[in-house]
Amino acid sequence: MSKTIELAKHLEKLHINNMYKSDFYWTWDKTDEELEAIFTVADALRDLRERNKSTRIFDSGLGISIFRDNSTRTRFSFASACNLLGLTVQDLDEKKSQIAHGETVRETANMVSFMADVIGIRDDMFIGEGHKYQKTFMDAVKEGYRDGILEQQPTLVNLQCDVDHPTQCMADMLHIIHEFGGVENLKGKKIAMTWAYSPSYGKPLSVPQGVIGLMTRFGMDVVLAHPEGYDVMPEVEEIAKKNAAATGGSYKKVSTMEEAFDGADIVYPKSWAPFAAMEQRTKLYQAGDQAGIDALEKQLLAQNAQHKDWTCSEEMMKRTKNGKALYLHCLPADITGLSCPEGEVDNSVFDRYLVPLYKEASYKPYIIAAMILMSKVKDPVSALMALDQGSKRKLF
Amino acid sequence: MSKTIELAKHLEKLHINNMYKSDFYWTWDKTDEELEAIFTVADALRDLRERNKSTRIFDSGLGISIFRDNSTRTRFSFASACNLLGLTVQDLDEKKSQIAHGETVRETANMVSFMADVIGIRDDMFIGEGHKYQKTFMDAVKEGYRDGILEQQPTLVNLQCDVDHPTQCMADMLHIIHEFGGVENLKGKKIAMTWAYSPSYGKPLSVPQGVIGLMTRFGMDVVLAHPEGYDVMPEVEEIAKKNAAATGGSYKKVSTMEEAFDGADIVYPKSWAPFAAMEQRTKLYQAGDQAGIDALEKQLLAQNAQHKDWTCSEEMMKRTKNGKALYLHCLPADITGLSCPEGEVDNSVFDRYLVPLYKEASYKPYIIAAMILMSKVKDPVSALMALDQGSKRKLF
Amino acid sequence: MSKTIELAKHLEKLHINNMYKSDFYWTWDKTDEELEAIFTVADALRDLRERNKSTRIFDSGLGISIFRDNSTRTRFSFASACNLLGLTVQDLDEKKSQIAHGETVRETANMVSFMADVIGIRDDMFIGEGHKYQKTFMDAVKEGYRDGILEQQPTLVNLQCDVDHPTQCMADMLHIIHEFGGVENLKGKKIAMTWAYSPSYGKPLSVPQGVIGLMTRFGMDVVLAHPEGYDVMPEVEEIAKKNAAATGGSYKKVSTMEEAFDGADIVYPKSWAPFAAMEQRTKLYQAGDQAGIDALEKQLLAQNAQHKDWTCSEEMMKRTKNGKALYLHCLPADITGLSCPEGEVDNSVFDRYLVPLYKEASYKPYIIAAMILMSKVKDPVSALMALDQGSKRKLF
Repeated sequence: MSKTIELAKHLEKLHINNMYKSDFYWTWDKTDEELEAIFTVADALRDLRERNKSTRIFDSGLGISIFRDNSTRTRFSFASACNLLGLTVQDLDEKKSQIAHGETVRETANMVSFMADVIGIRDDMFIGEGHKYQKTFMDAVKEGYRDGILEQQPTLVNLQCDVDHPTQCMADMLHIIHEFGGVENLKGKKIAMTWAYSPSYGKPLSVPQGVIGLMTRFGMDVVLAHPEGYDVMPEVEEIAKKNAAATGGSYKKVSTMEEAFDGADIVYPKSWAPFAAMEQRTKLYQAGDQAGIDALEKQLLAQNAQHKDWTCSEEMMKRTKNGKALYLHCLPADITGLSCPEGEVDNSVFDRYLVPLYKEASYKPYIIAAMILMSKVKDPVSALMALDQGSKRKLF
Repeated sequence: MSKTIELAKHLEKLHINNMYKSDFYWTWDKTDEELEAIFTVADALRDLRERNKSTRIFDSGLGISIFRDNSTRTRFSFASACNLLGLTVQDLDEKKSQIAHGETVRETANMVSFMADVIGIRDDMFIGEGHKYQKTFMDAVKEGYRDGILEQQPTLVNLQCDVDHPTQCMADMLHIIHEFGGVENLKGKKIAMTWAYSPSYGKPLSVPQGVIGLMTRFGMDVVLAHPEGYDVMPEVEEIAKKNAAATGGSYKKVSTMEEAFDGADIVYPKSWAPFAAMEQRTKLYQAGDQAGIDALEKQLLAQNAQHKDWTCSEEMMKRTKNGKALYLHCLPADITGLSCPEGEVDNSVFDRYLVPLYKEASYKPYIIAAMILMSKVKDPVSALMALDQGSKRKLF
Repeated sequence: MSKTIELAKHLEKLHINNMYKSDFYWTWDKTDEELEAIFTVADALRDLRERNKSTRIFDSGLGISIFRDNSTRTRFSFASACNLLGLTVQDLDEKKSQIAHGETVRETANMVSFMADVIGIRDDMFIGEGHKYQKTFMDAVKEGYRDGILEQQPTLVNLQCDVDHPTQCMADMLHIIHEFGGVENLKGKKIAMTWAYSPSYGKPLSVPQGVIGLMTRFGMDVVLAHPEGYDVMPEVEEIAKKNAAATGGSYKKVSTMEEAFDGADIVYPKSWAPFAAMEQRTKLYQAGDQAGIDALEKQLLAQNAQHKDWTCSEEMMKRTKNGKALYLHCLPADITGLSCPEGEVDNSVFDRYLVPLYKEASYKPYIIAAMILMSKVKDPVSALMALDQGSKRKLF
């Protein structure tokens, strides 16, 4: 029995009926079994691909991508996931469109979705705006489907919003699961999600938020650490606490990187901007106050610079379990002595973890593909079995 | 018997032999039966898609798109149509090319067409230039095919030129046909194509021209209205007159929006630039006279502003048949109080017609796909039947 | 027996085992039989396409393109080749990425290659850098494959580097082979690769280098001519000499265009920049010395202007064999009186060779596709036979 068939049989036992035609906004919208289904399908797709089996469930169809911020790895991950399943990516480049002319989101959403099976949106720039844009967009296409404008109901894959970064954190998590040999081995493991110094400004909060919102569901001891003033959204902290309470894990906030790293099995040191400052920036942008934005940037860079000791140095790593915690990053990292003079991580630490870091990233296309498959296919168990037993090869 | 089979049987009765390998420049190049064939195939493709049938007639192949002006809905409509049939879009982005270095259109045309099955071109900016560019391009690839440079002869879909906007107007027309329950119900219906005020300048004339050139072929009473000085191309008016004479309809020009709207079954209020001014602009561009262009723009905006009463207000709508004419627009519209202080249409009117407006737009991908299919497939009746009876599904 | 079957049978006799999973950097890395295999497969793919046979060997998969310089024909040739085989192109647009943030080539290479079957890179701007970038990139993905990050090992098609332009020169060569009725007719034919005046500056050396590195392998008399100071890389001249010695042809450098053209069967007059000046430019760029770059440009343009007599005029053409040598160019050419006042070639000469020039270019997609097929398919003979005998059509 192939690995894919084993995984399909496991999938059969999960309660996944609500996933058909559903959007993926935030991991905490989904049940534990639904997340498990995504991990299961991601592993199955990877297995099929390794065995040169065709993984196309679509004969034609479009995956629309909207990147409201620059992107390389998420762009290529989405393109890879779509290609894996047989969809073609059509990118909405807002600079080449007429959208600037005061067109509503509802109108754009319908106009680009005539053949869209999937919509992938990255909109992480402005606190309070990213998720709202995704929601408005998807409500519009749902209405369009209901009203007979669209033949099919496109579903969303959130490629990063102001609140969560589910494709990243699910890829991180699948990496952890494989590194530790299964979810069953995660109970009691300590993971440190910590702020780290970066010479740049305004990095999104969606990764730390996504991590504490997801990783608290597996019985792990999740620790968040950041300097004063770098709080994440309180709503997401509430979710982390509830998750921990429900799964026998824990969620704790500490005020030094050292405390977070002490004895940790996994560390995720990464820069982000203070939530309150990001709210302020959103308002300044809306008011078109460029002088205010510049002043805020200056102030935030100065504030960052007070915390250069928050860095994943060799000394810091020594504090972790046997000095050998699994180091995670969503990439690209600010690497001391390589990409900047002082940054999030020592070059020697980063370099030692290069292969696992790239592996971590390599799960993202499969996670995205699994999200799409679970949302578009009514009977995913049969679909996987058909792909496994079909004679279609990926390459002659 | 499925709807597709019914439509295929209808298609069988039409005289469509000349469509194979033909280009689609202007609707008035085509016979009534040829246009009917496009509507028929568009409906069939939509039916197949609704039933999750694969509509791929291509196993591989490219649709080359050239947008010499920004575009969202036409870009996505072309991408959707190509995807529907199995073609991949390759966009010629003139900014990323070496074309600036004095390369001829003939050379570019051949260089991008090695695997091109279809060429979609939007070039609507300059009166007297758009169509000429398309013609030069297509003559070059025809020569390339004849000379053995290209293995296949690519065919054109005019995605908007300075004269006609056939994919838009055909989509508008198919929408009308469905809204009125069939072509047979259109005899004697009044359609008002009227100019409307917009705070922007230089909108193409191809939509009003395309509308009067097409809609006069269905026995309708077509009325064109615009302020003095906003004439469309006289050649197209001649075509409209001839069409009307041939089909028992009528074509008339009136000088107020009120007169056009009175008792109308369908209204299409939309801004455009004066033909003569657009000719002047073309010359200024060719001379590189930026000061002249700026002066012209100023003058045209001032001229527009004298006609702010040309707007599709609630009062204006009351003049139409039962106050309930079908409101059309090619989108995006300039909406008073939403996208601009004073524009083409009241927000409350526009909002009431949102669903039909989006449906109108939703026909465009199918119209484009039908144009492609009729031009590329020698026996379209068999093709539709094979798609209907084939076991290939669009999505597993 | 179809032409494709004949070609497949010929392919069977060649020693091509080392081509599977290999990269294509430079033609001189490959054996004569390996190059013959590429020509053979290119011809077979063209034959299959002419007969409306599907040439897809991929059910899904990505071809990643990286153009570090503007491109039209190579971009469309790569897109066409990928489409021909069933791959989708995903372009890495460095402007839309986060690569500027100090990311390493190794990281980028892995991040964009998760589903990449083929990588096409054009990096011809800086002497000493283009090939180095390609090599670093490919070493990284090879490591990624070995380390289990990538499921498949992507292979390279060099779309032009600072040293060679193999897809261009192989297309040029296949054109020559067909024009002269077979490789066996090339022995003793004289080909003149000569510098020609252009009003622009800094054109890459990869074409003349690629030509002398490749064309010396077919028993031809290859002559390189350029004004003093326009030397090509000495390493490549060494290769040309060795090739000539091995195949019974010759390689010679002369100092006038006249001497090169005298009695030539084939002429390839084309501008390029002096090697030493390009080395200097690379250093100036690395130092960020814009003033130095501007000064160098000025100096090089002045230097070019001293050699306006190096042009492929009607008089010059008369010196060739019967005045009718086959004129080659990689396009776009600087055409005297058409794209510039004084350039590489007279308009009347260029115009007379338009059809063969476009044919020359038309081989490039097939050459690229053949390179991909030979590198990705373990048993290319069976693959061609299966395509020939399969029932899948390119177009219904």
